[in-house]
Amino acid sequence: MKIVFIGAGNLATNLCIALKNSGCSIIQIYSRTKKSAKILAKHTKSDFTNSVEDIKIDADIYIISVSDKAMVSTLNKLKFSPSLLVHTSGSTDMKILKKYTSNFGVIYPLQTLNKNKIINLKNVPICIEGCNKNIEEILEEIAKRISDNVQIYTSAQRAKIHLAAVFASNFTNHMYAIANGILQSEKINFAILKSLIEETKNNAFLIGPVAAQTGPANRNDKIIMNKQKEMLSENPLIEKIYSFVSKSIAESNIHKK
Amino acid sequence: MKIVFIGAGNLATNLCIALKNSGCSIIQIYSRTKKSAKILAKHTKSDFTNSVEDIKIDADIYIISVSDKAMVSTLNKLKFSPSLLVHTSGSTDMKILKKYTSNFGVIYPLQTLNKNKIINLKNVPICIEGCNKNIEEILEEIAKRISDNVQIYTSAQRAKIHLAAVFASNFTNHMYAIANGILQSEKINFAILKSLIEETKNNAFLIGPVAAQTGPANRNDKIIMNKQKEMLSENPLIEKIYSFVSKSIAESNIHKK
Repeated sequence: MKIVFIGAGNLATNLCIALKNSGCSIIQIYSRTKKSAKILAKHTKSDFTNSVEDIKIDADIYIISVSDKAMVSTLNKLKFSPSLLVHTSGSTDMKILKKYTSNFGVIYPLQTLNKNKIINLKNVPICIEGCNKNIEEILEEIAKRISDNVQIYTSAQRAKIHLAAVFASNFTNHMYAIANGILQSEKINFAILKSLIEETKNNAFLIGPVAAQTGPANRNDKIIMNKQKEMLSENPLIEKIYSFVSKSIAESNIHKK
Repeated sequence: MKIVFIGAGNLATNLCIALKNSGCSIIQIYSRTKKSAKILAKHTKSDFTNSVEDIKIDADIYIISVSDKAMVSTLNKLKFSPSLLVHTSGSTDMKILKKYTSNFGVIYPLQTLNKNKIINLKNVPICIEGCNKNIEEILEEIAKRISDNVQIYTSAQRAKIHLAAVFASNFTNHMYAIANGILQSEKINFAILKSLIEETKNNAFLIGPVAAQTGPANRNDKIIMNKQKEMLSENPLIEKIYSFVSKSIAESNIHKK
């Protein structure tokens, strides 16, 4: 299985290294930035290029892992029709690849990934989609080399999964960042929240996040909520987040009862 | 050490049982609701009452763990001055207790607690405050019976810690709840997010939540953000949360670079 990677960012780097480690042959890395291409190529003992024209034509599969905007402009520059073309985006419809080849699909690892921290994907759900049954089977086989949790979803379902992931990971992490900022103003270490954050996560999976909700908004404690909004008055954007999230918790609570 | 608990809610129940298990003698539980008082009393082999007039006068310490609103109205009905009076609220100033006795303080466990899930408090930070050095030492001694992580903070610091906890726990949990709702619309199980949520938490403590941020808002991917806002258009409140949190992530990003 000869693979060309188009892209060398956070997701590309983790996926490429996992595939290499599973025995795939990464024959080339393309990236707009020569330096990024070179670094990932070194990791995976492959060639590299920063020119679309120099992308090798004899790979079995081309995995494009770049931003949506870059995806179309990069593929438009391609001088040949790839044997099998796969993107890795949660929110991009598989059909975007249709005009470049008749064999296409998606491999989307549901994880927050960083090129500076290569992680094992064994327990990471990998969502796949193929333009037909045959391609789906090929992609399933590839994904199973690196993960024990491969699932088939349509583009519409994957878009919902990505949106859920933005709330559960990106937005959750930003809640941590706001908490960290509040603690820093008193020179208190973020680590004080460790057991609280751990327990919050455990409870959400144990009894479900709606049932697990606690706090001032959940018990409609207006005295505390007004005090806390007052404490945020110097940062209107964070105060707005406080108000809207509290309101949304109260609304969920109505449905719960 | 004879203790009376005023309140039998989520926090009171967990704290009361932890103190009982550490060898303290819980002599009475008061709660407005007889049933709640009775349940906690049974757990801790103590008496119970739902009448403020019947609260025993001979305890060494009175721990009041009720909502802010209920706290003042309950204490106003007390017919005697407690030997030592302690509240358990993150956001309530210690001084609120001053008019009821000359010995007062705060024991605030930094954890999300549920009366239906009694947890070990050993690793839970317990924030204490005393009206003087002597009381502080007494409260420290009590808190150390149940936790290895006892820390002394002022009321102003504790209010900041509580505000940080609202973001890191209550609001984070609501992000999980929103994600869960999105997945349910496609009949996908919340468990698909488990490894993502785990990794998000780990990265936040490993490199700090600001450095750990990923996702569409962090890379200013307007195409994806517009698609995702469109998907939320049927729920204006959640769409607003999406917009404001994304904006706040983008602002943090400016400071980072």
